[in-house]
Amino acid sequence: LIIDAHGHVSIPAAAYQYQSGLVGGRGTPPAFVRPKRLANEQLAPSLESHLANLDSRGIDVQLISPRPFMMLHSMRPESVSRVWTAYVNDLIAQQCAMSGGRLAGVGGLPQYRDSSPAGCLEELERCVGELGFVGALINPDPMEGECPPPPGLGDPFWYALYEKLVELDVPALVHSTSCCSPRESYTLHFLGEESIAIISLLESNVFGEFPDLKLVISHGGGAIPYQMGRFRAWRSRYPDQEPFDTALRRLWFDTCNYSAEALELLFKVVGADRCLFGTEAPGTGSVLDPESGRHYDDLRPVIEGLEAITDEERRLIFEGNVRALYGRLDPLLESAGRLSRA
Amino acid sequence: LIIDAHGHVSIPAAAYQYQSGLVGGRGTPPAFVRPKRLANEQLAPSLESHLANLDSRGIDVQLISPRPFMMLHSMRPESVSRVWTAYVNDLIAQQCAMSGGRLAGVGGLPQYRDSSPAGCLEELERCVGELGFVGALINPDPMEGECPPPPGLGDPFWYALYEKLVELDVPALVHSTSCCSPRESYTLHFLGEESIAIISLLESNVFGEFPDLKLVISHGGGAIPYQMGRFRAWRSRYPDQEPFDTALRRLWFDTCNYSAEALELLFKVVGADRCLFGTEAPGTGSVLDPESGRHYDDLRPVIEGLEAITDEERRLIFEGNVRALYGRLDPLLESAGRLSRA
Repeated sequence: LIIDAHGHVSIPAAAYQYQSGLVGGRGTPPAFVRPKRLANEQLAPSLESHLANLDSRGIDVQLISPRPFMMLHSMRPESVSRVWTAYVNDLIAQQCAMSGGRLAGVGGLPQYRDSSPAGCLEELERCVGELGFVGALINPDPMEGECPPPPGLGDPFWYALYEKLVELDVPALVHSTSCCSPRESYTLHFLGEESIAIISLLESNVFGEFPDLKLVISHGGGAIPYQMGRFRAWRSRYPDQEPFDTALRRLWFDTCNYSAEALELLFKVVGADRCLFGTEAPGTGSVLDPESGRHYDDLRPVIEGLEAITDEERRLIFEGNVRALYGRLDPLLESAGRLSRA
Repeated sequence: LIIDAHGHVSIPAAAYQYQSGLVGGRGTPPAFVRPKRLANEQLAPSLESHLANLDSRGIDVQLISPRPFMMLHSMRPESVSRVWTAYVNDLIAQQCAMSGGRLAGVGGLPQYRDSSPAGCLEELERCVGELGFVGALINPDPMEGECPPPPGLGDPFWYALYEKLVELDVPALVHSTSCCSPRESYTLHFLGEESIAIISLLESNVFGEFPDLKLVISHGGGAIPYQMGRFRAWRSRYPDQEPFDTALRRLWFDTCNYSAEALELLFKVVGADRCLFGTEAPGTGSVLDPESGRHYDDLRPVIEGLEAITDEERRLIFEGNVRALYGRLDPLLESAGRLSRA
C-alpha cells in the first residue's frame, strides 16, 4: 500500500460560501453560524476529483485534514475558528465515509490566538470518538504571525493537549496555518514554525513527561535537517544531554518537500524509519515541473528512484511507519478490505 | 589562499565592561557613552587567540564583522546601537591593522528597531572610506523578534541602503542579530530571517532596480536550499517569471552550517560558483564533534573531502568567489604581500 500521511480535504464552493458568511458576520447572526449540512451529491464532484488526483500519483490511501492556511485560527472572535473547524471536520468525516476506505481523517482543532489548547479537547475527543479520525493537527502559532505568539511546543502551556493525545492514542501533525505578516507567506511561516517547534520540543522535557506522545513534523522539518550542524554543536557543549541526532529521532517527519536531493538528506539525517510518505496532493506541489515533466507532488516515483535507501526502507516510508504510528488506521483499512488486497 | 568570508571579531573583557556601562546607562550619561579607546596591548591577547584559532583551522584570511547576537539593535534608546556599533567597528579596524593582512573588516550598521536604514549610511561610508572595510552586515530584523518587524528586504524601505552599497561597491552579508522572543533562540531566528530574506528579495524587483547589488546570505541560506521544491512549485505557476533555481543564483551563500551532507546539497542546488567558504570560527561551531574528533567549524577538511565537487569548484569556494565579490579585498591582500605568497 502507498499511504500518504499528509493530505488536505478538497471541499466544494458551497462550503466556501458558508465560510464567507461566517467570516463576514464574525460569528453572528446565529442563522449564519449554524452550518447547513451538504448532501453527499454536493460533495461528490470535489471528492471524485481528489481521488482521481490520488490515482494519478499512485496513492492508495491518504490521511486528510483541514487545509491549514484556511483555518482562521487568529480571526476574532473565537467562534469563527470554533464553528469553521467543526464544520470542516464534519466534511472530512463525510468524505472519508464516501471514499471506500481511501481516506482517513485527521482532525483540525479549534485553536484560537493565544488561548489555552485546553479549549480544543472536546473537539479532539469528538474527532476520534465520534468521527473515527486517526490523528489531529497542531498549529504551533494560532496567532498566525501576530504578536506575541504562544509559548513554544516545549512549554507546559501545551500539556493538556498532549495528555489527551496520549490518552486517545493518536498522533498529531505539527502544521502551522496562515500568516498575517506582510513579510512572510504562509508557506514560509510553515518552515519557520517547524524549525521552532522541533527545537522547542527537543530542548524541553515534553518526551520525559509524555513518553508516548507521537508528533509528526510537516514538510521534512523546516530548516532543521539541513541545519543539523549548528544544533549538533550546541548539544556537544552539554555532554550530559543526548546527542542532537538522537534527540531528533523522538519525532517523525513527512516527505512533503518536493525535492529529491532534500529527501535524500532527510532520510540520511533522521533515518527512513522516522519518515512518512506525504505529498499534500492536491496542494502546493500540484503543478508541472518543466524539468521532469511530472507534477512536483508526484513523489512516489521520486522516492522509488532514490538509490540511497533500501527497498525495506522504502516500504517503511510508504506504508510501514504510518501504520505503526497511526494505530487507529489499520482497523479502518481492514474494514474497508484494503489490507487483504495489498 | 583559504579565505573565510564569515567571521566575527574577538574582543577583550574591557570592551564588554564598556558595553555594560553603555547598556546600564541606556546611552547616558555622556561619560559612559564616550568610549575609551583600548590600546593595542589590550587587544593583543584576544587577537592572538583568534589568529591561533584560524591557524588551527587552516584559514589564511578572514573577514570579520561585529558578533551579531551582541549588536543590541532593538535596545532603546537609539544611541545604544549607534554608539556600540561605531565602537566595535573601531575595534575591528584596529585589529585588522594589527593582523598583518590576515583580517579584513566587514562593518556593522547602527540599525535601530523599525527606523529607516537611511540612518546607517554615514557609518557605512565611514567603514568603507575611513576604516578600509570591504563589506557590511545587514540585519533584516533590527526589531529582534519584537513586533512589528520592518518590511522584508524586497521592500523599498531598504533602497537607500542598497543604493549606498552599490555606490561604494561593497557586498553585504545578510545576518540577523539577537531575538527577544522566548520561543526562538538567536540561532533559530538567524535561519528564519535568512529564509524570509531570500524569498522577499526574489519576489521583489530589488535586482531590477539594483543589478549590481551583492548580497550574501549567511549559514547556507536558512531553510531555502533544503526546501527548494515548494518554491520551485510556486514559481512554475507563473511561467513569465524566471525559474526559482535561476532566481536563487542572484544571491551568494556561505558555508557556515557545519554539516557535510548539507554543504553537498547547497553546492548542488545553488552552484559552487555562488558559495563562499565561511566558518564563523571562533563561534557556534567551536566545539569538538565527538564523532569526527574535529571541531564543527573545522570546515576546510570537510570541503576538501567532498567528492561531489571538482578541485576548481573548491578553489572558487575557498578563494575565487570571495575575491571576485569583495572587490576591495585584493588591494588589502596585495599590500600585505599575501597574494604573492599564495
